[in-house]
Amino acid sequence: MVKQNYHSKLLEEAVDQIATLPGIGRRSALRHALFLLSQPKENVKRFVEAIDDMRSRVEYCPVCNMIADSGVCPVCSDVARDRETVCVVESYSDVISIENTGQYKGLYHVLGGVISPMDGVGPSDLPIAELVQRVASGSVREVLLALDTNMEGETTSLYIYRKIEGYGVNVTTIARGVSFGDELEYADELTLGRAIRDRRNFEIA
Amino acid sequence: MVKQNYHSKLLEEAVDQIATLPGIGRRSALRHALFLLSQPKENVKRFVEAIDDMRSRVEYCPVCNMIADSGVCPVCSDVARDRETVCVVESYSDVISIENTGQYKGLYHVLGGVISPMDGVGPSDLPIAELVQRVASGSVREVLLALDTNMEGETTSLYIYRKIEGYGVNVTTIARGVSFGDELEYADELTLGRAIRDRRNFEIA
Repeated sequence: MVKQNYHSKLLEEAVDQIATLPGIGRRSALRHALFLLSQPKENVKRFVEAIDDMRSRVEYCPVCNMIADSGVCPVCSDVARDRETVCVVESYSDVISIENTGQYKGLYHVLGGVISPMDGVGPSDLPIAELVQRVASGSVREVLLALDTNMEGETTSLYIYRKIEGYGVNVTTIARGVSFGDELEYADELTLGRAIRDRRNFEIA
Repeated sequence: MVKQNYHSKLLEEAVDQIATLPGIGRRSALRHALFLLSQPKENVKRFVEAIDDMRSRVEYCPVCNMIADSGVCPVCSDVARDRETVCVVESYSDVISIENTGQYKGLYHVLGGVISPMDGVGPSDLPIAELVQRVASGSVREVLLALDTNMEGETTSLYIYRKIEGYGVNVTTIARGVSFGDELEYADELTLGRAIRDRRNFEIA
């Protein structure tokens, strides 16, 4: 599609910028821009300031690299959590997903990415040395690797495993299996095979 | 869903604000916020400034009420357009849709809304008097009413028709019919009935 001329450079620039958001096309971007244009100026001011403040003022936890307003994050400073288990995730949104399950009470280590030679991301670009340091300090008993099962994720998991295996820490990974609600018929062979190998005693829910 | 605690008030406020956009839930809002957080500060500055500038500086054409950077809009000032035809639309996005067809060369009159007693919008809240003035000036030969076919749109069309019928102007409306690609079987009776009544000579495309 040829770039639309919107009769207003100001509108055009706003649409261009909104369309940089992931999954937002120019059509939706125009809808959002016109919505913002229809809102009271104070609301748009608040909208703009919230984003500006977030980008310029958010910090990262010096322990786990998670988003935090300042200093050590609320998870790392929560004494009620299991401080001997560290879950390694790629991004902060994975933390949110895991927290939402209510099944995990340990700490985190947010990599902020995975090893990906194609994108020029090597091990030294990620806070892996910091993870090794946490493990080496002796306070960690289990490292739960919760990275994606694509090539980059597997590579990163293996790299981390090699770096920490010498410290006598228990390295685990999340269970793979057939999702609730999925039909066996449509499960891929790898997943189904792993689900059968890792079968468990029947539980009455 | 209980409001998620994001371990950062700054992130939370940004997510809240992004989630005010139409059709954006908190999950997508988080994705957008984390995306903005991952971008260089200059990019986010440009993002924020584009929206801020748009909201604070955009003006509306004094003739047709369309979005314009300043003064009379590019459509109203384009002498190559058919200046005797005025298309009445609800919003600026309708202008974009009509311009994209390449089938319309006249001018516009953007109402910025429709008569809707439920939402407290009466005729005096819309620039209908300005439209009547354009018609009364004698320079308009045709007014094309291109409002939605819901109750508010029909009410507004009828109200405008009554206001301008005395000026000897030709009042038209866009054709209703079965959309290209739609199956007759699934067309509603009103649309199909109108399409049969308004049948045309067969054209070889």
